[in-house]
Amino acid sequence: MGKLFVVGVGPGGIDLISERGVLAIKKSNLICGYKRYVELITDLINGKEIFTNSMKGEMERVKFAINRAKRGDTVSLVCGGDASLYSLASLVFEMSDGFENIEVIPGITAAMAASAKLGAPICEDIVFLSLSDLLTPWKVIEKRVDAINFGDFVTAIYNPRSKKRKDYLKFVLEKFYQERGDLICGVVKNCEREDEEVKIWRISEFEYDFVDMSTIIIVGNTKTYLENDKMITPRGYLDKYKEFNVQSSGFKV
Amino acid sequence: MGKLFVVGVGPGGIDLISERGVLAIKKSNLICGYKRYVELITDLINGKEIFTNSMKGEMERVKFAINRAKRGDTVSLVCGGDASLYSLASLVFEMSDGFENIEVIPGITAAMAASAKLGAPICEDIVFLSLSDLLTPWKVIEKRVDAINFGDFVTAIYNPRSKKRKDYLKFVLEKFYQERGDLICGVVKNCEREDEEVKIWRISEFEYDFVDMSTIIIVGNTKTYLENDKMITPRGYLDKYKEFNVQSSGFKV
Repeated sequence: MGKLFVVGVGPGGIDLISERGVLAIKKSNLICGYKRYVELITDLINGKEIFTNSMKGEMERVKFAINRAKRGDTVSLVCGGDASLYSLASLVFEMSDGFENIEVIPGITAAMAASAKLGAPICEDIVFLSLSDLLTPWKVIEKRVDAINFGDFVTAIYNPRSKKRKDYLKFVLEKFYQERGDLICGVVKNCEREDEEVKIWRISEFEYDFVDMSTIIIVGNTKTYLENDKMITPRGYLDKYKEFNVQSSGFKV
Repeated sequence: MGKLFVVGVGPGGIDLISERGVLAIKKSNLICGYKRYVELITDLINGKEIFTNSMKGEMERVKFAINRAKRGDTVSLVCGGDASLYSLASLVFEMSDGFENIEVIPGITAAMAASAKLGAPICEDIVFLSLSDLLTPWKVIEKRVDAINFGDFVTAIYNPRSKKRKDYLKFVLEKFYQERGDLICGVVKNCEREDEEVKIWRISEFEYDFVDMSTIIIVGNTKTYLENDKMITPRGYLDKYKEFNVQSSGFKV
């Protein structure tokens, strides 16, 4: 019987894939993926059969992967970031049509990798929000923006801006500004790739033209601050424990 | 000069750590961490100096790690899951006191790993919510629960229930029930560890006594459904594209 791995390969560099993900890819005779993600793992897939297609080819790609696994192949469907979040695991189950030998291997999602570049803006409760209205109606997205303001959540924004959706990001950040003031925004373009760029701006100084679909934006909550060019959302330890003593409990293994 | 790595080691099994994380740990002469997480990576740290302490020892642990890095050691501060989310990266920056040679290495957070066990409940916009009021006031958590209802978010609940906070989870799920009906809850205890247990319940049949602090709960949104014991939040592809044809663009590398 064939097997289908749905593998989250992380945001970019091969060294952020888990060992379990690497092994699944090595075990597979067929690799399916969006062209750009497959290119990121070229070193891992030398000599294997490859099926790539473009954005919006997700259903074709998933159907192809499932059909081949049904016919006995060991297939890895590679996904950028995590295998589930804004990714293909759910479509795989929706289209599996009785095929059950599916294993989802989680990965490091882009926002966690971006957070590591910015300092530690992700720390406590957070919302992951996509601004693509291709699959989610804009009315739902708008409601969620209001919900984020109400809960004063840190927000990781995926798919922030395409040619067709030029002004959505501005709309969202202005909504944040109205309710919560001039929040700090961490901006990471091409995270973990060769041409990575990192910026930290207040909403009021945000350069919208910098942003494309390969950019992740992490907007802090009202407690997030900037120190030594690092964006930090405090977890609350320093407020809670005003005094503490270090008593080493270290030992040698 | 010393160096401090803040390493997200994932939820459990060593094979979900990234290669970058493994290399950082191998390079380090001192490993600091919460006892339980350090035990998970025993195979990686043989022969190294270890500093462990208990929960609520976070500030002591971080201070120790920073001080030793300042004195020239290469230190890995290991964190369960990701290095930032509900974790120690922000406290490290808050306490760094001028020490700058800090590298955060992201990890797979428990909710992504739990999602992979349950099917694909995490798929689109999601809230990560901790029910611990040790560091976040309960009033803020309550407000966020209302925000989640308003935005109909999928929710990953961390720290759901301790001896002192027995009824918080019930309160939250009942709030969800009132506003959004009998949502599906995926429950993963000891995710990726030997004694892992996976349950899927509706809110109305939820067994609260099963839950402890090592349990992650993923509550679906109003679109989440159950099929073949898998919890699936649809991303919307099937609604969007009613028909499609598979035209293979596969090629051999």
